[in-house]
Amino acid sequence: MSAVAPRARARRRARRAPNGAVPRRLALGGGAAAAGSLHRLRAEFERYYARALPSAAIVPRRLHAAIRYSALSPGKRVRALLALTACESVGGDWRRALPAAVAVECVHAFSLVHDDLPAMDDDDWRRGRITTHKKYGEAMGVLAGDALLAFAFEELGRLAEHGVPAPRALQAVRVLARASGSEQLVGGQVLDLEAEGRRATGPRVRAIHRRKTGALIAAAMVLGGIAGGGTAERLEALERIGRELGLAFQIHDDLLNRRSSLSRLGKRAGTDDQRGKATFPRAVGEERARREAQRLFRAAIGRIVGFGPRATRLARLAVAVAERER
Amino acid sequence: MSAVAPRARARRRARRAPNGAVPRRLALGGGAAAAGSLHRLRAEFERYYARALPSAAIVPRRLHAAIRYSALSPGKRVRALLALTACESVGGDWRRALPAAVAVECVHAFSLVHDDLPAMDDDDWRRGRITTHKKYGEAMGVLAGDALLAFAFEELGRLAEHGVPAPRALQAVRVLARASGSEQLVGGQVLDLEAEGRRATGPRVRAIHRRKTGALIAAAMVLGGIAGGGTAERLEALERIGRELGLAFQIHDDLLNRRSSLSRLGKRAGTDDQRGKATFPRAVGEERARREAQRLFRAAIGRIVGFGPRATRLARLAVAVAERER
Repeated sequence: MSAVAPRARARRRARRAPNGAVPRRLALGGGAAAAGSLHRLRAEFERYYARALPSAAIVPRRLHAAIRYSALSPGKRVRALLALTACESVGGDWRRALPAAVAVECVHAFSLVHDDLPAMDDDDWRRGRITTHKKYGEAMGVLAGDALLAFAFEELGRLAEHGVPAPRALQAVRVLARASGSEQLVGGQVLDLEAEGRRATGPRVRAIHRRKTGALIAAAMVLGGIAGGGTAERLEALERIGRELGLAFQIHDDLLNRRSSLSRLGKRAGTDDQRGKATFPRAVGEERARREAQRLFRAAIGRIVGFGPRATRLARLAVAVAERER
Repeated sequence: MSAVAPRARARRRARRAPNGAVPRRLALGGGAAAAGSLHRLRAEFERYYARALPSAAIVPRRLHAAIRYSALSPGKRVRALLALTACESVGGDWRRALPAAVAVECVHAFSLVHDDLPAMDDDDWRRGRITTHKKYGEAMGVLAGDALLAFAFEELGRLAEHGVPAPRALQAVRVLARASGSEQLVGGQVLDLEAEGRRATGPRVRAIHRRKTGALIAAAMVLGGIAGGGTAERLEALERIGRELGLAFQIHDDLLNRRSSLSRLGKRAGTDDQRGKATFPRAVGEERARREAQRLFRAAIGRIVGFGPRATRLARLAVAVAERER
């Protein structure tokens, strides 16, 4: 840093938007039209998602109500949108990736429902709503989560009906199973619980975030790439981008948790700190955490831009993720 | 019944072995050699299973220890053996079905671990051993179960390496996902919990058993048939046999639970009754339950025999299941 001229440093500072955001310049001329395009995609996904989930009229009705309550809770659907736009980024029609998008959202919903259980984080609220186990009882919380995980794989089986060749659909099954399992998503939750009350160090927090958030976000992108017919090289690039985005996303989340108020984030702010959760800002300080998130967002977006114009929507999504305030 | 001659009735009575067992005549000349053959198959499976599961040396170690503790608990491995011998019954080498056998055992283990949780059946003991959540803590019980379910699908992905074509492997994924999900296995557990304390009726108990036990046993057989390259017609027959065997198996289990002592069954006998669980003997009486199990076992074994000599080991297994005393 000492070798950098003061003017260059000032320029860099100016480029840095507040609250860890990525500078507008990287937004690829996004603006209202880009946001509209992503909103439309989200609305299309939401319709498909609501129809794909089993109806609440199916026996056992209370279980199916709990599944829909958990899966359709208000959320950003970042993982679904990443799968759909990653599919586009390798030249596929995003509609081919719809079952993959549903599958990753179901795995995400499953993990939230189980994380909120009394034996885990013991949360009564999530995104401003009462949690599944508080509404439907603890047994139903466990079972709705279980069913969501199983449903994710049932839905992946539908990739074949969307024109994805069977060997690729099977590859998607393996990728999602690994990302959800004991060495990634579930393993990350274990490390997270084990870390509570222990000193948060950079490497420890990174190991948790990589598994608990990074793995599923990377899997979402790889699944999209698989559905879109991407080459092995492209899938590898998507995985790497997903890892970077996932870590950046989680650090950003940690920063938001510290800052935001209940009304904004939908849960009590600073709850991570109160619990002694392993967060990046706690481990390395807010300023370094913010810089790290920015560095990762920039690297990921740079790589996406390298995919060319087909990746425009994916790039816009990544920027939106970097700029989100809740 | 009134039209049946007394001699015929006496013959039928003589054919009926004690304790709901199937008459020896149906054992296809089994004896020690047959038992040896099934034992060898079981030993081969056990070796593959122990190697397929993630090592306890992988981080998080405690989670992987809990996974192995749950999956490798002493058990009959009926579902695995059904998958392997069903594969043979359609002309496939049983080795092709090994990943399917592991997958169904993992789904079974996942369901037991979650059923034993405090919010569910709250069991401290299972097959003479302390339950997973009592040994590793409740959070780990939930997470080990979750990981086992995810692992089942990761393992199914390996069918391709065992020479099973990708479209068939994908079919296996869909069958297992449905059998594990909200309308079958998980749904059955919900109905079971809802039935506690309510009057046990035949239809109600049947609806629970069909989902909670029948679906996975049928899936095990269909998965074996898929791996073995069975025709759609054969898979349908295997599914039907699995449904019959599954229901018979569970009724037999209900009868054993009533009768056996702790030392024999590895859990307190009669616990189902104490809890007001929906069991078949409670719903229709022991005698009718025993007759129903026999009828189902006979029908299933008759159908298996129709598959010809390749189904010999499957038939022997079905007989062994019907005759088991624990």
